[in-house]
Amino acid sequence: MVEIAEGFGGTLSLGRRPVVLSIDMMRSYFDPDSPLCLPSTASLESAGRVVEAARENQVPVVHTRVEFGAGGVDGGLFIRKVPALMRLVGKNPLNEIMPQVAPQPDELVITKQYASAFFGTSLVSTLQANGIDTIMILGVSTSGCVRATAVDALQYGFTAVVVRDAVGDREPGPHEANLYDIQAKYAEVIDEAAAITYLESR
Amino acid sequence: MVEIAEGFGGTLSLGRRPVVLSIDMMRSYFDPDSPLCLPSTASLESAGRVVEAARENQVPVVHTRVEFGAGGVDGGLFIRKVPALMRLVGKNPLNEIMPQVAPQPDELVITKQYASAFFGTSLVSTLQANGIDTIMILGVSTSGCVRATAVDALQYGFTAVVVRDAVGDREPGPHEANLYDIQAKYAEVIDEAAAITYLESR
Amino acid sequence: MVEIAEGFGGTLSLGRRPVVLSIDMMRSYFDPDSPLCLPSTASLESAGRVVEAARENQVPVVHTRVEFGAGGVDGGLFIRKVPALMRLVGKNPLNEIMPQVAPQPDELVITKQYASAFFGTSLVSTLQANGIDTIMILGVSTSGCVRATAVDALQYGFTAVVVRDAVGDREPGPHEANLYDIQAKYAEVIDEAAAITYLESR
Amino acid sequence: MVEIAEGFGGTLSLGRRPVVLSIDMMRSYFDPDSPLCLPSTASLESAGRVVEAARENQVPVVHTRVEFGAGGVDGGLFIRKVPALMRLVGKNPLNEIMPQVAPQPDELVITKQYASAFFGTSLVSTLQANGIDTIMILGVSTSGCVRATAVDALQYGFTAVVVRDAVGDREPGPHEANLYDIQAKYAEVIDEAAAITYLESR
Repeated sequence: MVEIAEGFGGTLSLGRRPVVLSIDMMRSYFDPDSPLCLPSTASLESAGRVVEAARENQVPVVHTRVEFGAGGVDGGLFIRKVPALMRLVGKNPLNEIMPQVAPQPDELVITKQYASAFFGTSLVSTLQANGIDTIMILGVSTSGCVRATAVDALQYGFTAVVVRDAVGDREPGPHEANLYDIQAKYAEVIDEAAAITYLESR
Repeated sequence: MVEIAEGFGGTLSLGRRPVVLSIDMMRSYFDPDSPLCLPSTASLESAGRVVEAARENQVPVVHTRVEFGAGGVDGGLFIRKVPALMRLVGKNPLNEIMPQVAPQPDELVITKQYASAFFGTSLVSTLQANGIDTIMILGVSTSGCVRATAVDALQYGFTAVVVRDAVGDREPGPHEANLYDIQAKYAEVIDEAAAITYLESR
Repeated sequence: MVEIAEGFGGTLSLGRRPVVLSIDMMRSYFDPDSPLCLPSTASLESAGRVVEAARENQVPVVHTRVEFGAGGVDGGLFIRKVPALMRLVGKNPLNEIMPQVAPQPDELVITKQYASAFFGTSLVSTLQANGIDTIMILGVSTSGCVRATAVDALQYGFTAVVVRDAVGDREPGPHEANLYDIQAKYAEVIDEAAAITYLESR
Repeated sequence: MVEIAEGFGGTLSLGRRPVVLSIDMMRSYFDPDSPLCLPSTASLESAGRVVEAARENQVPVVHTRVEFGAGGVDGGLFIRKVPALMRLVGKNPLNEIMPQVAPQPDELVITKQYASAFFGTSLVSTLQANGIDTIMILGVSTSGCVRATAVDALQYGFTAVVVRDAVGDREPGPHEANLYDIQAKYAEVIDEAAAITYLESR
């Protein structure tokens, strides 16, 4: 058990049965021609290193990606609010997962339509059925799917840890503001080095 | 509005904005070589006629199918309890939808892992975002995914109607026992003719 | 670990961290003046013995009861379908838990509005946050809240075991039909003696 | 229909069947002796005016409050992360709703344990069963329960509108940062005057 003494509130103890959850590391966020593209690939490079450490230490890795059905009908109000999401209808290059964190054949890839990796997916069941107690969150974007997933992780009863270097956003303001909220109320925010130490030392 | 006066309890009024939900009409349930095969295709033929009536009357049709990820990891305890479900890992002929009710290009196909069409899917969001109030349920099996979906439809606040002729099971006992429970507590059970009349008369 | 080798499908292994879940053991089901009254109190007496064994063996007990808000507005379509549920609006004698299984001061009592103990409650979070892997289900009715809860237990990734003697229904037909479905697809059905042996032997 | 043309992304059209959702307006957030107390009651006063306008225009009002069971067991990891929440165990003055927005006898009061008003409650069912399409959110805190509820409202398929003057936080930074995210991705942020105009003009 690793105690993380950070945050003005309480702290959550990381457990013995973690999973690494790589959220929406799709081409749409890293391809300069995509309307959703982020300004940097630093989070992707960091996520690649964390995923590698997980595999070396037999920690399971789960990936999410976004894909909508024909016409975006299952995008509901999310697509009406963020029309750029229409680019993620059907299987296409923009919703492929980037090579730096590409899933291995035995790793679960969850297709989702909403912000939280728990919403409209069977993630909670897979974690519970496999005795997982801790979720290490990587991916994009900090103010969107990462925040929503961290909130749901706590709500569903899982200790979540967000790797600061391995999550990214369009702008530094929302990135920092959301990490602040996450640390204060929902999860533990740690850096890449602490994340890798934890994966190696369980 | 069509009032259905059946059932010892109260009755639910069918609404003006229905969807037809065709559950798990996959080859696995109709191919004699599948361990999950049902003894009859009568429900499939009936479902084909109801789906056709829906399309002719501009009622949207949503389909579900089952597919598990590598190793069946997202099948959790369901696969441990019903090992035959391992046949539904990955895209394969057994989890293709049968030609009689095959999805048209603009119809939503939801991939699920559990019994209820609501569980681990974004179905509830799609229905709410599109103003749907009534779910007409077809598919297989009555004692499994149909029953579980009818219970969740009521729980989520949708009027559900199960088309007796268009749902099927392995044995007549569980088929009838589950239709009895559904009518008593969760939804309205009607026959194919009443279903088609409703679709035509909204 | 106790292996229960029953059922034509697979079997689920009971875990090391169980909870006993006593469902809706309210006066409404056992008071002859209630429109929901069952014909027998045998399930209640059996449940009382199982709850006692749980307490003696430091297995946590969680209770559910039903209560609706003013006018039954949060009963949604369930109250429209089963009008007798209107008797459960507000705190009143009919939704008090029976003395045979009355909660102790440190036991969680969950108030719910729908059939499944998981639906519209934070049960899944409480179980996950406390490392529970197995749910022993008692209560009423077999064809209603017990069945719906057993389905959701499996869907959420928990091994469920239904104690045949400690669940009851209005009629023997639905009681047996639902135990058959539960054993075939969702959970393990055992008798009171096996339940108590398991609670004592973990 | 009122179109709100704000936000860099798309905009959601407010519907014809709104509900006003007053979140966690409990003494714990407004009593100077509470560890959770906010620096101002301005959001409470504004919320009082919006609730009044809703009642005058026959728009239903739903309230949430937080209450945990004995020992806080159903607070799961939330109580471990935010120990101050232990003050909300059992019915006590700190989880009473403030007089400015006190529920009327026919208004639904939902007791919840987590951040989102949808999580672990039957809110989604009540809204769907009553044909609600739009949720006007008031309450506290912006960076906690308000944000989490706005995200879930969109995820479940409801248009949400957050009333800027009627939501509050401990500090101005998180208040503004969260309103920015909400407007960009999840809901429409409007001021009190626009909210009241909408309630009067449907």
